Amino acid sequence: MTWDILNVIGTMAFAISGAIVALEERYDLFGVYLLGFTTAFGGGLIRHVVLGLPVSEVWNQSMLFLIAFITLTLLFFIPFHWFLTGWAKWGAFFDSIGLSSFAVQGALFAVAAGYPLPAVIVGSVLTGTGGGMVRDVLAGRKPLVLHKEIYAMWAVLGALVIGVGLADEMVEYMILLTLIIALRMLSVIYDWHLPSRSDWLNFLRQIKNS
Amino acid sequence: MTWDILNVIGTMAFAISGAIVALEERYDLFGVYLLGFTTAFGGGLIRHVVLGLPVSEVWNQSMLFLIAFITLTLLFFIPFHWFLTGWAKWGAFFDSIGLSSFAVQGALFAVAAGYPLPAVIVGSVLTGTGGGMVRDVLAGRKPLVLHKEIYAMWAVLGALVIGVGLADEMVEYMILLTLIIALRMLSVIYDWHLPSRSDWLNFLRQIKNS
Amino acid sequence: MTWDILNVIGTMAFAISGAIVALEERYDLFGVYLLGFTTAFGGGLIRHVVLGLPVSEVWNQSMLFLIAFITLTLLFFIPFHWFLTGWAKWGAFFDSIGLSSFAVQGALFAVAAGYPLPAVIVGSVLTGTGGGMVRDVLAGRKPLVLHKEIYAMWAVLGALVIGVGLADEMVEYMILLTLIIALRMLSVIYDWHLPSRSDWLNFLRQIKNS
Repeated sequence: MTWDILNVIGTMAFAISGAIVALEERYDLFGVYLLGFTTAFGGGLIRHVVLGLPVSEVWNQSMLFLIAFITLTLLFFIPFHWFLTGWAKWGAFFDSIGLSSFAVQGALFAVAAGYPLPAVIVGSVLTGTGGGMVRDVLAGRKPLVLHKEIYAMWAVLGALVIGVGLADEMVEYMILLTLIIALRMLSVIYDWHLPSRSDWLNFLRQIKNS
Repeated sequence: MTWDILNVIGTMAFAISGAIVALEERYDLFGVYLLGFTTAFGGGLIRHVVLGLPVSEVWNQSMLFLIAFITLTLLFFIPFHWFLTGWAKWGAFFDSIGLSSFAVQGALFAVAAGYPLPAVIVGSVLTGTGGGMVRDVLAGRKPLVLHKEIYAMWAVLGALVIGVGLADEMVEYMILLTLIIALRMLSVIYDWHLPSRSDWLNFLRQIKNS
Repeated sequence: MTWDILNVIGTMAFAISGAIVALEERYDLFGVYLLGFTTAFGGGLIRHVVLGLPVSEVWNQSMLFLIAFITLTLLFFIPFHWFLTGWAKWGAFFDSIGLSSFAVQGALFAVAAGYPLPAVIVGSVLTGTGGGMVRDVLAGRKPLVLHKEIYAMWAVLGALVIGVGLADEMVEYMILLTLIIALRMLSVIYDWHLPSRSDWLNFLRQIKNS
């Protein structure tokens, strides 16, 4: 039940993020649906494929498909400019709910299938960020996840906590989920970035000179 | 038998469209084969993977692989300029046969596997346009299907007709096929586009002002 | 055992090539891991998916994942400029070991699964070059394999030799492997390119005029 609510929020947030990229690229109505659905469902679908899980599970989520369809249709046709303005402000919060719940569930799928830690991390990262990567590639952009504030690392964190067995019941999952949302929002608010190599070399140089 | 003929036409048309992109990007002989085969077989392969169908079916089409290989080899080596000129004129027709027959067969695969409507649409769109999308991504281009005249929507139309059960015998499939080819050709000839969001907002503004 | 050693060399070389692209694009630490792992394991994973082989085989290579992780971590954090300079010189050699052993093993997977020649070629090319293609797409680049010195054709050559049954025991595989490495190195050293179509048309023109 809790997962269901989180999935609805995450699916809507991811669908909207796909649609916004399509609007920015001036893609047509089909492009809005394609990028919206790809962002919302692509990560889970790729996860199921690369982990060898039965893909029919992904297709039997008719309610989520319907919700994404309605969301994308409203977004395209209703001339609410305040929505897109508001999304620039609040979107990151809903997006981080999607990242967090998709990443945790992705890790749980890999664990349930008996896979070792690398697959748990891949399951988590792909579910949380795979849809967005496909979205960016189809829009001819470099994947955002590779160069903006810390994003995918929080999916990795979730995978590590679950993969080593630190969380294995619902209440622990919810704490982990909240933690990931909080860390993601802090990354956005304080513009946290992972170091690039030149950041790291500069850091070493400063230590040496001080 | 009818499907076989349509598949040969579609496979050749898609392979040629891949090869032409490779030539435009000045890719080498390998690039011509890679983009040609990817465009011709990529959609069907991705469909089989994401719908969880047995991929061996895709590989056991040796005749189609051979036909694509011969087509690509001739296209590359024979210095027939009239062919490429003619293709600019007639290519869209053969391409629309490929779109139409691949989309209808993609939808039928999803229906036969017992999937709900969203999967039927995805099966149809992926089979009809997936190869072209991979082609464009590998060529470093934005997928054509997202911003040129109406293309993928006709695959969606085919999927809807089949998914809701309006067509379920051969003669009906052939009527649907002809309809999709006709609609696609009309889209090319009259430059039909789906609206972008700014088209839609302009339209609303005109209504308001009139 | 021999395959194990070759796989370690190939995995390290491919991971490094992914990391270097990430550094060139100024991606952050996560980007280095993502492109590194994708380049090293992406080809084998895609091969298993499109040939319908059990993907769990790919995930149960914990030792290779660990080796790639250590390689990428050292590359990022140790300020050894001589390594990156040396890699520009020697990297192609290790990379060609990866290309060769991955291509041969990819072909063998397809043969073992009873697939016909086209699938053997795809298995070989995808394993040898698929990871690098995904790397380039995620970095917003045109796949190197499509326009630099002859690369993927040596994977095709390996697939043909194995697919038609010219090599089917270990000593023959090793000869084939060495041949592919040698041909790949000769391609780099003498800047061998496959012809583009304009090369071919020029060639025909020269024959005609002479």
